[in-house]
Amino acid sequence: MSTDQNEISFPTVPAPDEQAQRQAVARHEQLTKPAGSLGRLEELGVWVAARQGLCPPRPFSRPRVVVFAGDHGVAGHGVSAYPSEVTGQMVANFLAGGAAVNVLATNTGATVRVVDMAVNADTPPVVSAHKVRRSSGAIDREDALTDAEVRAAINAGRTIADEEIDSGADLLIAGDMGIGNTTPAAVLISVLTGTEPVAVVGRGTGIDDNTWMRKTAAIRDALRRARKVLDDPVALLRTSSGADIAALTGFLAQAAVRRTPVLLDGVVVGAAALVAEELAPGARQWWLAGHRSAEPGGPLVLEHLDLTPVLDLGMRLGEGSGALAALPILTAATRVLGEMATFDEAGVGGPTEAEAAKS
Amino acid sequence: MSTDQNEISFPTVPAPDEQAQRQAVARHEQLTKPAGSLGRLEELGVWVAARQGLCPPRPFSRPRVVVFAGDHGVAGHGVSAYPSEVTGQMVANFLAGGAAVNVLATNTGATVRVVDMAVNADTPPVVSAHKVRRSSGAIDREDALTDAEVRAAINAGRTIADEEIDSGADLLIAGDMGIGNTTPAAVLISVLTGTEPVAVVGRGTGIDDNTWMRKTAAIRDALRRARKVLDDPVALLRTSSGADIAALTGFLAQAAVRRTPVLLDGVVVGAAALVAEELAPGARQWWLAGHRSAEPGGPLVLEHLDLTPVLDLGMRLGEGSGALAALPILTAATRVLGEMATFDEAGVGGPTEAEAAKS
Repeated sequence: MSTDQNEISFPTVPAPDEQAQRQAVARHEQLTKPAGSLGRLEELGVWVAARQGLCPPRPFSRPRVVVFAGDHGVAGHGVSAYPSEVTGQMVANFLAGGAAVNVLATNTGATVRVVDMAVNADTPPVVSAHKVRRSSGAIDREDALTDAEVRAAINAGRTIADEEIDSGADLLIAGDMGIGNTTPAAVLISVLTGTEPVAVVGRGTGIDDNTWMRKTAAIRDALRRARKVLDDPVALLRTSSGADIAALTGFLAQAAVRRTPVLLDGVVVGAAALVAEELAPGARQWWLAGHRSAEPGGPLVLEHLDLTPVLDLGMRLGEGSGALAALPILTAATRVLGEMATFDEAGVGGPTEAEAAKS
Repeated sequence: MSTDQNEISFPTVPAPDEQAQRQAVARHEQLTKPAGSLGRLEELGVWVAARQGLCPPRPFSRPRVVVFAGDHGVAGHGVSAYPSEVTGQMVANFLAGGAAVNVLATNTGATVRVVDMAVNADTPPVVSAHKVRRSSGAIDREDALTDAEVRAAINAGRTIADEEIDSGADLLIAGDMGIGNTTPAAVLISVLTGTEPVAVVGRGTGIDDNTWMRKTAAIRDALRRARKVLDDPVALLRTSSGADIAALTGFLAQAAVRRTPVLLDGVVVGAAALVAEELAPGARQWWLAGHRSAEPGGPLVLEHLDLTPVLDLGMRLGEGSGALAALPILTAATRVLGEMATFDEAGVGGPTEAEAAKS
C-alpha cells in the first residue's frame, strides 16, 4: 500500500501565527472588561487572530460551507432508518435552499456548495463535476473504493479546498450528507481511536434496536477489514470509507496546508478529520470543533484530536448544521477583539492599584 | 411590610400558547431532517413559537437590550477589584458604543438602552430619567433603599419594560453594570435558594483571596439582615439589593405579564429573576437562560428556576453579554422552524415503512 502514500502526500502543515496570538492575548487585557471575563469568547478571538496572522482579526468575509454527499453500499444492509434514495432527494433540497444547512447558512452570512462524490442517482452538473462513482462499496464485505477512486476522491477534496480558498473563502465549514454515512464514520472512529464498536455506534438518523444491532454487526465486519490497514490512511479510506469521506479528508488536510481555518461539524466530518490528521499531521491546529455531536463517536473524535467544542446542543443532523450554529459565536469573538474600546480609548479606569500590582 | 406588597403587585402571569407549541412540535416532524436531529435547536424553536403564539414563529424584529446600571455602597468595603468610579465610566463607554454589550448587540441586530438607576456620578438625561438615587446603601450595614425608593425602582423597571414593548421590542435582553453588584446578587441567591454563602460567592470582576474574604464577610453580614424579610420580596429588595436590581426585578416580571420573552444573562440578572418569580409567579415561563455564568451563583439560579442555559462558555462579564452571545442560536432556531422545507414540499421521502410504522 506504500505506493498510495507516495502518490497522496501533503506538504508540512504550517503553524498558526504565534506573534498574532500573543498580540491578541495582550489586546484582551486592554479591552474594557475584566481580563478573562468573556471566557471562551476571548479564547476564540485569539484563535482566529492566530489563524489569520492578524491582530485584531477581521470578521470572516466569505465563510463557505461545502457539503460532501455520497451513498454507501452498506445502507443496503439495513443499517439506516431511511432508504438511499433520500440522499439524492436531499441534494435537490440543498440546491432548492430548503434544508437545515441552507437556513442556518443564510442566518449567518455563509454560502453553501454541495458536491456529489458518490450519490446513487444522477445529479446536476453543478454538483457532480467531481463525482467518483455511484455509491461506494459495502464496507462490511468489500472495499469502499478502488485504488484509483480513493486517490481521485482525496484529490477532489483537495481541489475543492483550493477552489474555495482561491475564490476568497476565509473560513471553510465542512458538512456531509449520505444515508448510511455514520456507519463508515463509526468504523474509522473505532479503528483510529482504539474504541470498541459498541461505544461508537449511534442512532444515526434515528434507528431502532434491531437496526442498531444490524449496524453494529456491519461495523464489526468492516472493522476486521479496516484493522489490516490501520497504519495506512489512504488504504484505510479505500477499504472503509466512501468517496464522500475520502474527499472530506483531502479537503480538511488541504485547508490546513493553505492556512485556512475550518469549522468542523459532527461525526462524519470528525471521522474524516481523524484520517486527515494522519495524512497531514498538525492539520488539527487549523480546525475548530463547532459542536459536540449527540452521536457517541463525536466526543471520541474531539478527545482524540484534543478539540474543545463551542456548542453542546444535542445536535446530530450533519450537513454542517452544528458548525453553522457555532459560526455566530466565532464571529462575535472576532468582533469583540476587534471592535471593543480599550481602557485608554474609553477613559475607563482599570483595577485598583492594589489589585493591579498583583497581576 | 405588607403595605409594600399591596402597593407592588403584578397581575397573574399568562401561560405561553399551548396550541402554537403543539403545532411547532408537529411541524418539526415534517421538516426535511430526522425528527429530533437538531436537538436543542428544535426545542428553542418550539419555545419561541409558544411565546409568540404563532407557528411557524417569526424572527425577532426588534431584540432590545436594557442594561441596568447602579453603584453599591458595599463596594466601599473592599469587595471589588475595581473602584466605583468605573460604573459611571462604563455608562459613558456604553453610550459611545465601545463596550462588549455594544459589539455583541451590533453583531446580532439588537439595540442597547442603558438606564442609570443609582450610579454614583452624574450621567446624561438620556440614561438618568429613572434614576432613584446616587449609589445604594451598603447592605452589610444598612438597607439598600428606603420604602419609597424600592417602590420607585421596581416601578421604573416595569415602566421601562412597557416602554420597550410598546415601542415594538419583541425580545427583551436584561443586562447589568455596577461595581459591587455581584455582592447583593450573591445575598439574594443565597437567601432565596437556601445556599451557604461560601458556595455563592464568586470572583466577580476578578478579585484576589483577601478581597474574596472581605466579600464573603460582607455577604454574611448582609444575609443576617436579608433572612428577616425572606418571605417579602419587596422588603428583601429594599434591604438587600439596590435600585438597579430592584428595577431589573420589575422589568423581568412585567415582561412576563406582557407576554414578551426575555433572554436572561448572568448572576445579577439571575438574582433579580429569583425575586421576580416570587413577585410574579410563573414569570419564569417567559425567560430563557442565555448562558451558564462562570460565577458560582449562576448555576444555582438556573437550578432554582428550572432553566437550561443555551451556552456554557465560561463567561462572567454581565452587561447582557452572555444573553447576546446566545441570541443568534435563538434566531437560528426560529428560522429553522419557519424556513426549512417540509418532506412534502421538497419531495424528500421519510423513513422506511418499517421504521415509520414503529414511530
